[in-house]
Amino acid sequence: MTRPINFCSGPAALPEPVLHRMQAELLDFQRSGISVMEHSHRDHRIVELFSETEIRLKRLLGLGDAYRVLFLPGGATLQFSQVPMNLLSPNRPAAYVTSGTWSEKAIKAASQYGPVVEAATSRDSKFTKIPDRQTWVIPEDAQYVHLCTNETIQGVEWFGSLADVAAPVVADMSSHILSRAMPMHEFDLVYAGAQKNLGTSGVTLVILKTELLESAQSDGVPGLLQYRQQIENDSMVNTPPVLSVWVLALVLDWLESMGGVPWVEAQNRVKAQALYHAIDHSGLYRNPVAIENRSLMNVPFVLQDPSLDARFLLQAESAGLMNLKGHRSVGGMRASIYNAISEQDVAVLIDFMREFERTSG
Amino acid sequence: MTRPINFCSGPAALPEPVLHRMQAELLDFQRSGISVMEHSHRDHRIVELFSETEIRLKRLLGLGDAYRVLFLPGGATLQFSQVPMNLLSPNRPAAYVTSGTWSEKAIKAASQYGPVVEAATSRDSKFTKIPDRQTWVIPEDAQYVHLCTNETIQGVEWFGSLADVAAPVVADMSSHILSRAMPMHEFDLVYAGAQKNLGTSGVTLVILKTELLESAQSDGVPGLLQYRQQIENDSMVNTPPVLSVWVLALVLDWLESMGGVPWVEAQNRVKAQALYHAIDHSGLYRNPVAIENRSLMNVPFVLQDPSLDARFLLQAESAGLMNLKGHRSVGGMRASIYNAISEQDVAVLIDFMREFERTSG
Repeated sequence: MTRPINFCSGPAALPEPVLHRMQAELLDFQRSGISVMEHSHRDHRIVELFSETEIRLKRLLGLGDAYRVLFLPGGATLQFSQVPMNLLSPNRPAAYVTSGTWSEKAIKAASQYGPVVEAATSRDSKFTKIPDRQTWVIPEDAQYVHLCTNETIQGVEWFGSLADVAAPVVADMSSHILSRAMPMHEFDLVYAGAQKNLGTSGVTLVILKTELLESAQSDGVPGLLQYRQQIENDSMVNTPPVLSVWVLALVLDWLESMGGVPWVEAQNRVKAQALYHAIDHSGLYRNPVAIENRSLMNVPFVLQDPSLDARFLLQAESAGLMNLKGHRSVGGMRASIYNAISEQDVAVLIDFMREFERTSG
Repeated sequence: MTRPINFCSGPAALPEPVLHRMQAELLDFQRSGISVMEHSHRDHRIVELFSETEIRLKRLLGLGDAYRVLFLPGGATLQFSQVPMNLLSPNRPAAYVTSGTWSEKAIKAASQYGPVVEAATSRDSKFTKIPDRQTWVIPEDAQYVHLCTNETIQGVEWFGSLADVAAPVVADMSSHILSRAMPMHEFDLVYAGAQKNLGTSGVTLVILKTELLESAQSDGVPGLLQYRQQIENDSMVNTPPVLSVWVLALVLDWLESMGGVPWVEAQNRVKAQALYHAIDHSGLYRNPVAIENRSLMNVPFVLQDPSLDARFLLQAESAGLMNLKGHRSVGGMRASIYNAISEQDVAVLIDFMREFERTSG
């Protein structure tokens, strides 16, 4: 049986070599004779798994000692609450840019914990772009500015600079972290669920400048959700999601072995360019996103004749192309082409789309 | 290489057949051609994995429609906060029985969220027992009573009845859930991290009577941490820890295939009896716990001559007996003999202990 090509937006396709390695090493972690799941998290092997994964991530992201990486439970959704629970104070507002479904959820969650303002939004254009930097209105005393740098559902991605933002910048990078070189030093706190580009669900990365916590709150915040406590305990305030961290570690190892971010960025740009080109040059498909904000990772598209949607999905499935249905809130189709999707996979999709258009006329 | 016998208190040994099945099915979940990790959590296969696991758990626990089972992130430690965040009100106290390290953490966390009283404690006896029911002082208007029914570190277990407690009963069963038949209907909310007796870390069971939530709080509680929202969304308020739930499902399937709770209880009683008998009839080893509270799952013991500790651990490791070191707070040794540890495994441990005593005189 040929392995299907899985365009799911997340949980998403994993690199096949990672799955084979998991399979091979599942019963014997580092020659201990038992599984990674069976070790105490206080065992030196697991402590090293965590510290080495942090080091590897910082190397891949180009970050130094000013930053720490935490491996936390609860997904990016818990970070929507955890960020303001830790950072927001009663007297200074946080400024949120809303550019799609996920940043809308983020601002809604934050408003429970303190003053929040919307610095800019592209709601009026149905989130087909991210508001330009010069339109953002950031209060002078802003505690932080929050941005979702890639909106998975709308397929819009941030390629601009934030170097001129005075307040600390917090970003949800769940669906494009490590997909290309990014100016990570412009960010003070970045979070990302692992199940899109980095591994499997159950663990969320929080990458933060430790100096950000000097003004951190803790009243009423469960110890497990306090960044400071997690930093002091190297992400082990309690038993962490070891298995998910192991999968993450294997994905990062695979990424480095393939050539790291430069390799994957080159591949991702070729994939996205080919797919957008095929859409733009078709008579059937259309992508509504502003050219400058088109995501390299999530490519939504609609069929000009929506009555063909069901047949498109059925034939795609038969051809081994899985999970192309768009999110119900925007309709149509979506191809998520994360790091684990190859140029060849995208070529197969494009061939299928052309053949479908040809035979559906 | 012989597989070592792993007496770790958690994360703990898994049944070897579960590991082999994971390995066999890792790349192809239910003939979909892709891994369980690669499916959307909205895919019918994953939705069914969750609903079938809930059904199986309720069957194994003997629970009906009054209860729901949730699969949540954050470990039992997050439940220490989440229980009072959801259930505690400003005007009615919660009553906690403190019988060891974990229940001490639970009451400390709860006291952040509202009035809390200690109904009873065995602190004076160094937590070598659980306070008798008749000594508990429960306020008449108690919102709930909290008990840790098996203290992993001290090795004390609750075998009494709670049928006469008027207030709702909340229990931390992390380290002995599904180890024997228990009067589950005496409990209104039970939580348990999976990494001891049920699977791997990353998922925590919360089993609760839905009527308990009629007075539930939600102000300032992140949506993800609201039991009511998780019930309404069948544990999928956001992307849940699918891989850990799959491991849990495989462990439950193994347990049922072996004969369920009656089978495992019989085995667990034989194992514990043999080990305590060996300790009590030795000249070298001693277990300090009151007979009526000796845990079937966690058996701490000290060597009369602590200078032998290091040699004991070294020789045990050489003999393929892993993780026998006791928790630093109590010292000595601890053998955790969860469901995945067989009678034969315990027999090997007892043989080793006897041989060590014979050669260390």
